[in-house]
Amino acid sequence: MKKIAVLGSTGSIGTQTLEVVRTNKDIEVTALAAGSNITLLEAQIREFCPKMAAVWEEKKAEELRTRIRDLDVKVVSGMEGLLEIATEPSAEILVTAIVGMIGIRPTIAAMEAGKDIALANKETLVTAGHIIMPLAKKRNVRILPVDSEHSAIFQSLNGERENKIHKILLTASGGPFRGRTREQMKDIQVEDALKHPNWTMGRKITIDSSTMVNKGLEVMEARWLFGVSMDQVQVVVQPQSVIHSMVEFEDGAVIAQLGTPDMKLPIQYALYYPQRRFLPGERLDFAKLGQITFEAPDFENFHGLSLAYEAGNTGGTLPTVFNAANERAVQKFLDREIGYLTITDMIRESMEHHTVVPNPSVDDILAAEQETYDFIESRW
Amino acid sequence: MKKIAVLGSTGSIGTQTLEVVRTNKDIEVTALAAGSNITLLEAQIREFCPKMAAVWEEKKAEELRTRIRDLDVKVVSGMEGLLEIATEPSAEILVTAIVGMIGIRPTIAAMEAGKDIALANKETLVTAGHIIMPLAKKRNVRILPVDSEHSAIFQSLNGERENKIHKILLTASGGPFRGRTREQMKDIQVEDALKHPNWTMGRKITIDSSTMVNKGLEVMEARWLFGVSMDQVQVVVQPQSVIHSMVEFEDGAVIAQLGTPDMKLPIQYALYYPQRRFLPGERLDFAKLGQITFEAPDFENFHGLSLAYEAGNTGGTLPTVFNAANERAVQKFLDREIGYLTITDMIRESMEHHTVVPNPSVDDILAAEQETYDFIESRW
Repeated sequence: MKKIAVLGSTGSIGTQTLEVVRTNKDIEVTALAAGSNITLLEAQIREFCPKMAAVWEEKKAEELRTRIRDLDVKVVSGMEGLLEIATEPSAEILVTAIVGMIGIRPTIAAMEAGKDIALANKETLVTAGHIIMPLAKKRNVRILPVDSEHSAIFQSLNGERENKIHKILLTASGGPFRGRTREQMKDIQVEDALKHPNWTMGRKITIDSSTMVNKGLEVMEARWLFGVSMDQVQVVVQPQSVIHSMVEFEDGAVIAQLGTPDMKLPIQYALYYPQRRFLPGERLDFAKLGQITFEAPDFENFHGLSLAYEAGNTGGTLPTVFNAANERAVQKFLDREIGYLTITDMIRESMEHHTVVPNPSVDDILAAEQETYDFIESRW
Repeated sequence: MKKIAVLGSTGSIGTQTLEVVRTNKDIEVTALAAGSNITLLEAQIREFCPKMAAVWEEKKAEELRTRIRDLDVKVVSGMEGLLEIATEPSAEILVTAIVGMIGIRPTIAAMEAGKDIALANKETLVTAGHIIMPLAKKRNVRILPVDSEHSAIFQSLNGERENKIHKILLTASGGPFRGRTREQMKDIQVEDALKHPNWTMGRKITIDSSTMVNKGLEVMEARWLFGVSMDQVQVVVQPQSVIHSMVEFEDGAVIAQLGTPDMKLPIQYALYYPQRRFLPGERLDFAKLGQITFEAPDFENFHGLSLAYEAGNTGGTLPTVFNAANERAVQKFLDREIGYLTITDMIRESMEHHTVVPNPSVDDILAAEQETYDFIESRW
């Protein structure tokens, strides 16, 4: 019996993780944490019978306790609650499907407690990769990527322990606005940006995909996860999202992982690594597919990607600022407070305004985050 | 110091193997065997200083002995000579870059002597896979594929020891006549068939690529090499020859190896497996490449491929007949004795005429080969 805890169980990755659990009877869910959707969380608790559950606000936690008073489930709240879920003693793997920098402390706590991390929280490595990766080594825990691209790289590297990575080719769909100039993107509305050509995902990541900020975050994640420099991670636009990513080796050989766009595959791979299991769903049919096309990424019109390379190359707290500014900007765009192009303008100005702290502690990272939020509130 | 012996050193794979040796100073060549090109063989002996060399005809061997009387190199000939080269005591790996069923006995002898096989001789597995694979297991020797497609599959499987193959996707360029009907292929001349769109190879294999008989042989090889059924090996036409082959697993994930068309990569990979080394040469540039396209293979017009599946599914001596008939037919086509479409007609008629011997010994295989040659001589 494999035992897992899930942070962010009511989100897109969280619900898909539970779908994987549903079809694999040898996984047990020991703890669940959600943001605020207690209706879905209650249903998940009734189906998966964890020992413990968390919601962010204590008021909601109280409401949940009332709803499930017929069950023997401990309900916790706040950061303390998240930390308790993350370190639930019987879990072997923590799935970090939570969005935002809020995921960093629980991830570190779980690693300190010796748990493997099925990592779906981008912010953890983007902002604290220099802390997380050495800690994983020290505690001898595994960081198992759940993101489709990083899982593809991880799968491609699985037989290559004796070989150095020459280059990571991180594929990108290019999003719904691929091919447009900035001029053509200035009037983009929320509804347009929420239509991703290939993947069904949460709202924030869908906007991030359209701006290519998401790809920028992935480049920074990949850099830490696979121990390479920013420049060794090259983005290749592959609009059909069939090649999930590739690795080039010293001899010129490229190993790639391909598949249909189904997040359950990387989730299941992370949970059972290195074992693969049957997964229901569509399969690639190459003759039907007909073609896979490639383009260089458009750095000129998609500033989010060039700013990400700048942030990653500088390091320190700059990736945190990049991420925090984007988080706030996307929220403002979704709330129809700012125009589409202002998202990357906010990121740039926040980065320009920030004084980088090299080799930051978790406290430094969280301070840089708060500083960025404050800057954005004062500036816009 | 890695020590290798090479059968077929003056052919296309043989010379490229020696190019790899030339750039890797920690490989030593202990023995070389060539067919009849003693001028090139002499140059190779002078450059690579083997202990022993073989040519097929004793007359040529005698000539070579005279030419290199200043060197301390033993020159042998005939099948006995080949066997001596194959079992040269100091070699750890035998590269079987020889063409034809003549490669079977030396390969078996080398395996019996505990040597790993860098396999470039297609006929070995096609005709005697049921003997070779159990022998490799028994003698605990490795069969390291040198063919581009099989190396790609081998590379894709390297991290997947815990996982069953669901399907092998063997890619094919489709050759220079892809898209043509049989009617449109009836007047094809030797010169047309010798123009392969992507790879520079020997004459016989270039013709075999144009008829897709080569792909049929590769399907049979793959079946033995990777322990799957014929139906688990699916041919995917990928005209750019960028994806060298793929493997699909139970969860739907596909792992692929991609690269430029350079045989030195699979050769070097086989010699240093699982270690990769820098290899000079062009690299894939996906943005420049633009696209990779896919088609289903055309079984209706390329009978060589459907006959191969038939031969492989029936097994016994039928793959031997398929191979021997093709070998003779291609020679006759190259000698301008028969038309292009007669190649596959000869294969079909030979297969129809043959009474299959199940689970054949090496003697049975060689007898079936001779019978096929005799049938073709009597019939055409």
